[in-house]
Amino acid sequence: MPHDLVHALTGSGAGPLAGLTVAVKDMYDIEGERTGGGSPEWLASHPPAKRHAAVVARVLAAGADIIGKTVCDEFFFSLTGANAHYGTPINPRALGRVPGGSSAGSAVATAAGACDVAIGSDTGGSMRVPASFCGVYGIRPTHGRVDMTGAMPMAPTFDVGGWFAASPGTFRRVGAVLLEGESERAPITRIRFARDAFQLADEPVGNALRAFCAQARAELPNPEDFTIAPDGFDLWRNVFRTIQGREIWSIYGSWVQRTKPNLGPGIRERIQSASTIGEPDADAARQKLEVARAHIRGAIPLGTVLCLPTAPCIAPKLDATAEWLDAFRMRAMSLTAIAGVSGLPQVSIPAALVEGCPVGLSFIGSAGSDETLLELVVRLSPYCGA
Amino acid sequence: MPHDLVHALTGSGAGPLAGLTVAVKDMYDIEGERTGGGSPEWLASHPPAKRHAAVVARVLAAGADIIGKTVCDEFFFSLTGANAHYGTPINPRALGRVPGGSSAGSAVATAAGACDVAIGSDTGGSMRVPASFCGVYGIRPTHGRVDMTGAMPMAPTFDVGGWFAASPGTFRRVGAVLLEGESERAPITRIRFARDAFQLADEPVGNALRAFCAQARAELPNPEDFTIAPDGFDLWRNVFRTIQGREIWSIYGSWVQRTKPNLGPGIRERIQSASTIGEPDADAARQKLEVARAHIRGAIPLGTVLCLPTAPCIAPKLDATAEWLDAFRMRAMSLTAIAGVSGLPQVSIPAALVEGCPVGLSFIGSAGSDETLLELVVRLSPYCGA
Repeated sequence: MPHDLVHALTGSGAGPLAGLTVAVKDMYDIEGERTGGGSPEWLASHPPAKRHAAVVARVLAAGADIIGKTVCDEFFFSLTGANAHYGTPINPRALGRVPGGSSAGSAVATAAGACDVAIGSDTGGSMRVPASFCGVYGIRPTHGRVDMTGAMPMAPTFDVGGWFAASPGTFRRVGAVLLEGESERAPITRIRFARDAFQLADEPVGNALRAFCAQARAELPNPEDFTIAPDGFDLWRNVFRTIQGREIWSIYGSWVQRTKPNLGPGIRERIQSASTIGEPDADAARQKLEVARAHIRGAIPLGTVLCLPTAPCIAPKLDATAEWLDAFRMRAMSLTAIAGVSGLPQVSIPAALVEGCPVGLSFIGSAGSDETLLELVVRLSPYCGA
Repeated sequence: MPHDLVHALTGSGAGPLAGLTVAVKDMYDIEGERTGGGSPEWLASHPPAKRHAAVVARVLAAGADIIGKTVCDEFFFSLTGANAHYGTPINPRALGRVPGGSSAGSAVATAAGACDVAIGSDTGGSMRVPASFCGVYGIRPTHGRVDMTGAMPMAPTFDVGGWFAASPGTFRRVGAVLLEGESERAPITRIRFARDAFQLADEPVGNALRAFCAQARAELPNPEDFTIAPDGFDLWRNVFRTIQGREIWSIYGSWVQRTKPNLGPGIRERIQSASTIGEPDADAARQKLEVARAHIRGAIPLGTVLCLPTAPCIAPKLDATAEWLDAFRMRAMSLTAIAGVSGLPQVSIPAALVEGCPVGLSFIGSAGSDETLLELVVRLSPYCGA
């Protein structure tokens, strides 16, 4: 439950979020409270925060009340939402299945109607995957457009704050509160359907999302089939994972070595694996990152939007095997690496149901086009559930 | 799809609902469009509306955009949401089950994230039942507190406009836009749990709602077990149905006799049954109504709130038999008649899941306590999904 972790905070009461309630992923500091990052041992071994994280201060100043913090994957290092210490937040839209992570509790709180808006973050899919699995709106903004002061880092090259909402106008409204830096506004003149990304999705998922696009075609101008990754997704995903691993170890490695925390399954293996990545590997990956970034940014110029499945499948079952989840993680990260390596903004909308479970449709725009993507979301929203 | 029925309307853009999108039940007039009340023959045989219904004008003035009209049960005369002419809106939270009605399309649009707010109406449960079945917030305000000018009537003694939202702050915010007349504000000092209403619910539904109340007990002061209907619910339900039938026939009877519309199953039988209710029956019922109203209002004075299940069960399956649905209707109307006959305000919150399907928990307050109930909803909301 969100407010198990922190006392509720009353906002200014005036502003664009007046009267709305917000839940916050337990990676953002709240003054006087400990921040845990999904790890009870990190929580216990660190002092209360001296001040609010920037996003917390912003939503309070914009008039919202904060109802509490939400559970996330340990050190944000999973896409499932399963936290071995606190339990897995229950996905109210897909019972018996994971909520997606690492912003799991924030997505669940939004889907359950426990709040109007929930703050999360995204490094390698931690906003987008739970948005898809829980059937809510979610955004990974342009890298750098959300002030991460007072947030626990994971891999700063990719980390960006984001938010969920259950309805489109509220979702858009938060943009004016949390987005800073340069906004690039231009009409959307072309939608590129990433056929190679759609091919990664389970057939019923791809079909359901294509059916949504057919219904909503009036809002999707100049559609064209497009191959975003002509050399496949493996390189981008590996580049992403190498840099991510190097950065998380550089941040948390000494604490892990010193305290030997009882890390949950999967988290332990990935942190261990991260510890083996040397600086030469990371350097080589950073060079490839620049090439990948240039390629993707070239394919999505101002006015162009790339359309793709948010995740390759509906939420995995709670009792899925570790092998199955590893395979899921690889497929999911092939899709999430596009915005991850490029730093471009991506929104996910609750476009369809497959086997009664939500599936998200995503749109990636050019750098700074976040506001344009939020407008697109509102125009597409009437087709949700149609 | 909502906007099949009407072109979208842009609101003032400024005000408490600025930037939010609204869907409207097809019983409210929109200038230049025909109003159908769920009946294609009524739609075809009436001219376009000359002006907006009051609630439409209010949400537009408050800054919202209207994305379209929503399908409802024919002449609002069902609690299932099944419309034989337009099809049954798909309940995105309980696939293979009805959405509840008659404000079915509005509840579904809200649950699917197709809009921020959807307007409906409630005579004998048409807001509350779909709110419960679709897992959204819904309100039946105090009778008379929503201006029904420009709305098709059903049974004016009981008709009242209401709204749905997927998140609590947005739900509360609409109150300032649509509620008029006297607001009675007082702290909630006592929660009466209607044990006889809980007894009407399926055991798993009652248990799930009681578990929610136990979690949220800090927000539910001075709880006490209470019998709201010491003589049972049959009398109130029959009084309600007699007056409802008499009024709907007095409004639509001559049109039905003249045009002989092809009414859908269930609707046809109930309209036929309504035609047999004479004025002496109605008069007798009206006298009993006054007694029932006084009893219920006496049991829920200012500061007291009655807590009860919104509906007795999860949403019935789409292929339920007519007999099963008739039995469901009787049970549901035993619960909905409490606010129906008394004219008191009732809110429903998406409190729990049973078999993966939403179930709503309701609170009935004293006349004019709508705003107090909306505040209670926001305080209880963090426990949703907990």
